Amino acid sequence: MTAVNIAIVYYSSTGTNYRMAKWAEEAAKEAGANVYVARTAELAPQAAIESNPAWKAHLEETKDIPEAKPEDLDWADAILFSMPTRFGNVPGQMKQFLDQTGGLWGEGKLVNKVVSGMSSAMNDHGGQEATVKSLYTTMMHWGAIIAAPGYSDPITFSTGGNPYGTSVTVDGEGQMKMDIEPAVKHQTKRTIQVASWVKNGQEQ
Amino acid sequence: MTAVNIAIVYYSSTGTNYRMAKWAEEAAKEAGANVYVARTAELAPQAAIESNPAWKAHLEETKDIPEAKPEDLDWADAILFSMPTRFGNVPGQMKQFLDQTGGLWGEGKLVNKVVSGMSSAMNDHGGQEATVKSLYTTMMHWGAIIAAPGYSDPITFSTGGNPYGTSVTVDGEGQMKMDIEPAVKHQTKRTIQVASWVKNGQEQ
Amino acid sequence: MTAVNIAIVYYSSTGTNYRMAKWAEEAAKEAGANVYVARTAELAPQAAIESNPAWKAHLEETKDIPEAKPEDLDWADAILFSMPTRFGNVPGQMKQFLDQTGGLWGEGKLVNKVVSGMSSAMNDHGGQEATVKSLYTTMMHWGAIIAAPGYSDPITFSTGGNPYGTSVTVDGEGQMKMDIEPAVKHQTKRTIQVASWVKNGQEQ
Amino acid sequence: MTAVNIAIVYYSSTGTNYRMAKWAEEAAKEAGANVYVARTAELAPQAAIESNPAWKAHLEETKDIPEAKPEDLDWADAILFSMPTRFGNVPGQMKQFLDQTGGLWGEGKLVNKVVSGMSSAMNDHGGQEATVKSLYTTMMHWGAIIAAPGYSDPITFSTGGNPYGTSVTVDGEGQMKMDIEPAVKHQTKRTIQVASWVKNGQEQ
Repeated sequence: MTAVNIAIVYYSSTGTNYRMAKWAEEAAKEAGANVYVARTAELAPQAAIESNPAWKAHLEETKDIPEAKPEDLDWADAILFSMPTRFGNVPGQMKQFLDQTGGLWGEGKLVNKVVSGMSSAMNDHGGQEATVKSLYTTMMHWGAIIAAPGYSDPITFSTGGNPYGTSVTVDGEGQMKMDIEPAVKHQTKRTIQVASWVKNGQEQ
Repeated sequence: MTAVNIAIVYYSSTGTNYRMAKWAEEAAKEAGANVYVARTAELAPQAAIESNPAWKAHLEETKDIPEAKPEDLDWADAILFSMPTRFGNVPGQMKQFLDQTGGLWGEGKLVNKVVSGMSSAMNDHGGQEATVKSLYTTMMHWGAIIAAPGYSDPITFSTGGNPYGTSVTVDGEGQMKMDIEPAVKHQTKRTIQVASWVKNGQEQ
Repeated sequence: MTAVNIAIVYYSSTGTNYRMAKWAEEAAKEAGANVYVARTAELAPQAAIESNPAWKAHLEETKDIPEAKPEDLDWADAILFSMPTRFGNVPGQMKQFLDQTGGLWGEGKLVNKVVSGMSSAMNDHGGQEATVKSLYTTMMHWGAIIAAPGYSDPITFSTGGNPYGTSVTVDGEGQMKMDIEPAVKHQTKRTIQVASWVKNGQEQ
Repeated sequence: MTAVNIAIVYYSSTGTNYRMAKWAEEAAKEAGANVYVARTAELAPQAAIESNPAWKAHLEETKDIPEAKPEDLDWADAILFSMPTRFGNVPGQMKQFLDQTGGLWGEGKLVNKVVSGMSSAMNDHGGQEATVKSLYTTMMHWGAIIAAPGYSDPITFSTGGNPYGTSVTVDGEGQMKMDIEPAVKHQTKRTIQVASWVKNGQEQ
């Protein structure tokens, strides 16, 4: 049984989705997968970043995390995305990354990638569902296999019950309002599980 | 390698999605799957049906097709849905069927079903995308594994290029404006293929 | 300035969306609108209803509320919808009602209706966003004018921050987990306000 | 009756949506509106642009069109957006622009903007519906008033029947496969009409 390669691609301005990505990384290692964590390139004007100390600090803190490249996805059997909402859709920083996968897409190399998404928002219903669903629309264009968590584990119910993907509400101080770490880990392991079936099935 | 069980669940008023379901059935048999075709119960008032001769004739023509029951889904490894748009969403007849799966859902029996959807509309852009995407939202609640066709085969490009699922435009006389049979068959076989990986992976 | 006619169309199994509809009715009266409240027809099998005492009791309690008819919408300048999620989409009972508006739609009589939607779910992120958004897809087919509340009033932030429409989480005992009455009332008044602009503009 | 200010904000790589924006501009002038046309900033790497002669030529051709700034939206009563699909969602170039409206949004200045969207794709069903619907999700966060065309004019039926917004399929040579100019003009005038009702209603 070949180990699954999972790419965890996130965008984070002040750290929430970075933390989610790191929990996912831990779970992926526990599951025996090969893991690669990468952040999508920042697009915001420097002035916007400078005006928000938490944003600036987080960028500095994660400057050694590699920037996601479309070609990273070629290596991956599974891809887990994490990003905050921006008005009910993925941030420009994530969308611009996804838009750059046209080359791989044209070669059919994104077909059968097993994918899953996570999100965060400042309000309980401020795009946590809509953002992950927007991501999945793009995944359908890829011909990817979508493994939303649904209610595949009781942990979903006790962490807000988002069947599209784990999500969290962040308060004004940037604190997550709920401990979603176990839900992130469940979603990661489920994604790897499905990818393992797909990968091994294809290899037979 | 255990054969895949595929349920083909459709709603059709005047026959388009019935024909799509039958093409899918042929493809499923070719692929060696066990197939069960069922139609969702009609909900329209008798007067509405009587006022449309094509609708009445089609109901008569398909009276021996079994009515879909939620428990049919328990048997299935893969489920392919086909339905016309009704204002950019699945018809009430399909939604009411889906709503009745709450019992199976509560027992976790819909998790990991491999699913895919097809649609039709009277206008090229009159809900062909939106209808299939609406179906997939419900599938995410199930924890199903979504295998939209994407552009996994060149046939998608030559039949309208709907990555969410095969779709067709029907003219005023009820004729399909394009030959989508090969796209239906590709989508069916792909769904079975993915379900085979998932089923065999789970059995190991 | 002609008063606005608002139809409040809801589906409720155990009472949550009925209560939301009644709060909306109060707000509509306060705003000087003519109000008509109607419930969409029940489609569930009698056995399902009988098996749930709260559902049966609620049906009994509201048996005098008129059943919504498509033609009610012709009278309305504004329409406010309220319904629980069913797997991230409107319930079959609401969809079947919407599907029956084909006649009015064909005559162009749904164009420029001012519409807005509300929802409920058993989980915080269990379709509260997705359900209202599904409704709006259908509204776009109507050529209706969509007045989602957005963050047009601070009350949105303090009641879960759902910009698509007011929503609420209901616990296992059927209790709303948050007091959303003021948000319902704001959304109702905003819908009437926009409808008033549209109605008076058209009459000039 | 005060004239409506309409901003036409588009992204175009090889010219389709630029042409749509220009048709909209003509219609807006005919309708007596004040019009401002602006393109969202290009984000693609220079190498990607250089590798596509049509893209490079179009960028050169439109270098005098002003770049859209969030503050342009403050002036506008109505906003019409036009953009190609990128995997079933708005392009990164449009999303990044929308993301920069956080300041205006925080001041409540986007509430009651009357908005509408248009799209294009390389396949008939390759995101023409999904892209406009993705835009509208963001508009709901703004508290904008969404005026999708629906089937408010027969021209919608004869130009592909996209109720969410006018859309067009572009062939491999960059040619539009249908004459959508009258549909663009209808949608523009309808958007201005609704905005006129809203603006004059607010001023009373």
